[in-house]
Amino acid sequence: MKLIGYFRSSAAFRVRIALNLKGIAVEHAFRHLRRGEQRAPDYAALNPQKLVPALVLDSGEVLTQSLAILEYLDETHPDPPLLPKDAVGRARVRSLALIPTADIHPIQNLRVMAYLREKYDQSEEGTLAWSRHWIETGFEAYEASVAGNRHTGAYSHGDQPTMADLCLVPQVFNAARFKVDMSKFPTIQRIHATCLKHPAFDAAQPSKQPDAEA
Amino acid sequence: MKLIGYFRSSAAFRVRIALNLKGIAVEHAFRHLRRGEQRAPDYAALNPQKLVPALVLDSGEVLTQSLAILEYLDETHPDPPLLPKDAVGRARVRSLALIPTADIHPIQNLRVMAYLREKYDQSEEGTLAWSRHWIETGFEAYEASVAGNRHTGAYSHGDQPTMADLCLVPQVFNAARFKVDMSKFPTIQRIHATCLKHPAFDAAQPSKQPDAEA
Repeated sequence: MKLIGYFRSSAAFRVRIALNLKGIAVEHAFRHLRRGEQRAPDYAALNPQKLVPALVLDSGEVLTQSLAILEYLDETHPDPPLLPKDAVGRARVRSLALIPTADIHPIQNLRVMAYLREKYDQSEEGTLAWSRHWIETGFEAYEASVAGNRHTGAYSHGDQPTMADLCLVPQVFNAARFKVDMSKFPTIQRIHATCLKHPAFDAAQPSKQPDAEA
Repeated sequence: MKLIGYFRSSAAFRVRIALNLKGIAVEHAFRHLRRGEQRAPDYAALNPQKLVPALVLDSGEVLTQSLAILEYLDETHPDPPLLPKDAVGRARVRSLALIPTADIHPIQNLRVMAYLREKYDQSEEGTLAWSRHWIETGFEAYEASVAGNRHTGAYSHGDQPTMADLCLVPQVFNAARFKVDMSKFPTIQRIHATCLKHPAFDAAQPSKQPDAEA
């Protein structure tokens, strides 16, 4: 399999953690998002959504959208699982995973910031304030969902990493880049610290990727 | 079970279609999003994310995030299935479902438009143009993913409705409200028309809900 990603992409970061957790070795290829390489015709032919990541299977099939890839990896490489066994627990984990994946990251990512700057005449500070606002709004929802909840453990759900943590950690990295005040989110901070002690999360972080830039 | 929704919420609309397809009868309750009723303390206690829909199980457990609810309904009421049987097909359907769910709707929904208007001094036309842009960008990705793909059938994947269609149809309704030129998306239009002939989709549409407004 080949993962096409970008060191700073939250979505690719989620998939890298899953591959590490499950011990799946893949070839790595890169598309430089700031240079717009994901819009090149050869990549659009592979992934018409023109986003990273894409996972190219040995059969030639191309999987896209990080959450769909996480579900695929969990179905085809079930050990260790990314979801709990009970249906209600699975729903809780997926709901938590969707807070960064649907409610935060798509609103504050590179392409939205670029659009705000170019078409809505926003300064650098205006776009940063935008991103901070949506990260904080989403983190308030995440914090309220995990703080004091009896299903929360060392990780977001119980004492093993789940899909929720795989989506949370890249968003916390983004929050740091945008200087979000994390002191309002103590449970997120605690879970994030636990995750980073896990080698699968640590090895997946942006600065440790072959295409990393300062 | 009780579904807490709002007639015009895309996310609630997705869940209504799934319930209809699977023949699951639920009690319906409503939170008026334009009046901000989803932020009331009694609702926040139930769903700390302060978004609709929420599905309250007979056990009292509360499920949130539409895609997590769709997966739960499919696991607990498998017939008819919302996902194909093969892992690669499941990944394709989930990836398609995530285009409206993660890449379009969160960027163009009510709260983002309100924030643009209030904090970024945008006129009504400025916020409408914003929403149209993100719907068109996402629909270009969806159209490119289904047009000419051998897995596309009468519906987005094969000849039965899947999770992808449940997420696509509410987004097409939104596109109509925002006057998106749909002639650029002939495959989406064809699939949408097929879906609306299905009673499960038809009965779920906003104008046919008890809380509908003109």
